[in-house]
Amino acid sequence: MKKKLISEFLGTYFLVFAGTGAVVINELTNSLTHVGIAITFGLVVMALIYTFGHISGAHFNPAVTIGFYINGDISIKDGIYYIISQFLAAIAASATLCYLFGNVASLGATLPRETWSQSFVLEFILTFFLMLVIFGSAVHGKAVKSFAGIAIGATVGLEAMFGGPISGASMNPARSLGPAVVSGTLEHLWVYLVATTLGAVIATILYKTLHD
Amino acid sequence: MKKKLISEFLGTYFLVFAGTGAVVINELTNSLTHVGIAITFGLVVMALIYTFGHISGAHFNPAVTIGFYINGDISIKDGIYYIISQFLAAIAASATLCYLFGNVASLGATLPRETWSQSFVLEFILTFFLMLVIFGSAVHGKAVKSFAGIAIGATVGLEAMFGGPISGASMNPARSLGPAVVSGTLEHLWVYLVATTLGAVIATILYKTLHD
Amino acid sequence: MKKKLISEFLGTYFLVFAGTGAVVINELTNSLTHVGIAITFGLVVMALIYTFGHISGAHFNPAVTIGFYINGDISIKDGIYYIISQFLAAIAASATLCYLFGNVASLGATLPRETWSQSFVLEFILTFFLMLVIFGSAVHGKAVKSFAGIAIGATVGLEAMFGGPISGASMNPARSLGPAVVSGTLEHLWVYLVATTLGAVIATILYKTLHD
Amino acid sequence: MKKKLISEFLGTYFLVFAGTGAVVINELTNSLTHVGIAITFGLVVMALIYTFGHISGAHFNPAVTIGFYINGDISIKDGIYYIISQFLAAIAASATLCYLFGNVASLGATLPRETWSQSFVLEFILTFFLMLVIFGSAVHGKAVKSFAGIAIGATVGLEAMFGGPISGASMNPARSLGPAVVSGTLEHLWVYLVATTLGAVIATILYKTLHD
Repeated sequence: MKKKLISEFLGTYFLVFAGTGAVVINELTNSLTHVGIAITFGLVVMALIYTFGHISGAHFNPAVTIGFYINGDISIKDGIYYIISQFLAAIAASATLCYLFGNVASLGATLPRETWSQSFVLEFILTFFLMLVIFGSAVHGKAVKSFAGIAIGATVGLEAMFGGPISGASMNPARSLGPAVVSGTLEHLWVYLVATTLGAVIATILYKTLHD
Repeated sequence: MKKKLISEFLGTYFLVFAGTGAVVINELTNSLTHVGIAITFGLVVMALIYTFGHISGAHFNPAVTIGFYINGDISIKDGIYYIISQFLAAIAASATLCYLFGNVASLGATLPRETWSQSFVLEFILTFFLMLVIFGSAVHGKAVKSFAGIAIGATVGLEAMFGGPISGASMNPARSLGPAVVSGTLEHLWVYLVATTLGAVIATILYKTLHD
Repeated sequence: MKKKLISEFLGTYFLVFAGTGAVVINELTNSLTHVGIAITFGLVVMALIYTFGHISGAHFNPAVTIGFYINGDISIKDGIYYIISQFLAAIAASATLCYLFGNVASLGATLPRETWSQSFVLEFILTFFLMLVIFGSAVHGKAVKSFAGIAIGATVGLEAMFGGPISGASMNPARSLGPAVVSGTLEHLWVYLVATTLGAVIATILYKTLHD
Repeated sequence: MKKKLISEFLGTYFLVFAGTGAVVINELTNSLTHVGIAITFGLVVMALIYTFGHISGAHFNPAVTIGFYINGDISIKDGIYYIISQFLAAIAASATLCYLFGNVASLGATLPRETWSQSFVLEFILTFFLMLVIFGSAVHGKAVKSFAGIAIGATVGLEAMFGGPISGASMNPARSLGPAVVSGTLEHLWVYLVATTLGAVIATILYKTLHD
């Protein structure tokens, strides 16, 4: 279990460090563009799945851990440890970015571009499909599981690409909490905690219903 | 069969939601650029094949379903159910985008940049090669089938990249019908329904001729 | 053999149609950018290898066919048929682009940005490494051959990315000959025919020397 | 051993030629953009791993070779030969670029954007995670090793994407030494030699601690 929690910590740390680091560094240097930020998010998830997937399952995302709990893939106790590890890692990553670059661009915190309800619906849909891709490509009995990292990384990358300009394309409570807490941008944090978790839960219930 | 139709519905919904959503959100935010839109189309197809390919075959495209019917891979009855499911999903995806963002950019409807005949020929060629890639990478007896998702996603992505600025690079009647119907942009819809289907049919006939 | 020649024709046609089509359409619409053109070249090669690799070996490139001939992988007679098929396909692809879009951007013909000697050396190096990647990833006894399409597509894509602005990053006599002949831009064609062939030949000799 | 050293030489040569060549050619032509440069770095590493991984292990990076030495995967004697071969290749690649394009953009030498200490910390973190990805995806007993090239190439690409604008995203003493020596930009070279090596060493110690 210790190895699994270290794996979740390191993976979530690097995911948040690279992904929100891309947002921060783009703010400072105007060089990545939105396309470069989205590519960073997709590639880091893919790389991390092939690095840590065989150790901890490579959740790196409390909403995904809750989905796996509902599907019966992880115990409630282990799930809570996973989530604590993910949140701590996200905060540590944001703190590192703040130390290196200052409190720039709210450290990459996710914020609704227009109304919170628009971003709520979008984050729900994004996380719903992310969770479906995870079940379909990495859990389903007939899936070609070795390609799950490519499918899931691609999903995070493409959702960051098209959803990012509207809601920030969080899909991940830890990815939203880290920058929000360290930069003090807490106003809309609840949107991202609730909508992403709800999306993962509904996707899991749908998946279970279809495969029971 | 129920699972297959749900798979086709969910897959086509997400394909149209992400792909044409990228067009809509780029119109609103000027952040994805054409390159980001094309990458979104390619990645979503790839991710969906690894998610749903082992359930329904991951057509998500009436022209592809018709190609598989001609090749003898699906019965006429199942094919019709597939196509209905795909069209309904595309309409639902466009309706969701309209609800979230309003009737912007004709919801990503495909339109000829210049003459309809230019776009007709281009869509024919694009879908012809898409169908050949599908047969060659996913159906052919000697294909390394686990890589089909990468090959087909790459094809959709690259065709969106170079063909998008001319014809919208539909390659898919459902992808064109959803935005056209919901946004009321029906004038050139027939070009995309006919040219893509024709491309897939001719590719199938060529493939069958060579391998019988 | 008939199937192999059709495979080489279709593959080379689509490679040249998509790749140089991206150049032409970018000239007309200013939307792909150089990055989008390079991505198109890389993805089309990757997709084609998974589509036709198990049929004809997926050369699509006279320099590569000559390399395989020197390495003893193809007879001289078959090699000549392959090369004729590739040249005809490239001309047909350029003619299609000319019919659809007019004689724009010399139909994507490769031209030296500065001196011909600079482009000669660059094309030699680009094709030398392309041929090494082909031998290392697709031919070598210990290679993980199913990933060869990814490695070779990536190589074409990255070489188009960094070499394109200087020499056009041909790496392929057919890809240069098609647009040059149809658009009548023949002045520097010899640079691309000779430098790419020389690069492939020297890479083959090095590979053979090391593995005999 | 001769084949291994030639493999390390050719791989490091092409990595530095393509990656720093992208920097140089972007300076000359303004066409690649930072996104195109980062993609070039990621793709060349991926392609080289599938080309040379089965011959020499595809280090191409003295910091990685030192990591493997500490982990017990390579003898000190072989490690030193590897590193000499990598440094010579990087110098040869930079010399080739200088011959072709002149001493432009310091031949792609890595330089801190702001303070050297900021770049030191960033390079430490970048190389730390690169080394973890290498161990996790290519060395760990349960890793799906055939995907290691994708995971490691993605890591180099994404780190170049987000870290490049701050420190140059070296992660590799040879990649920094070649351009610095040939272009005479030696002032901050020590930062890149020390920080990257330290990152790889600490990652190796962590990996060993967890798996002993």
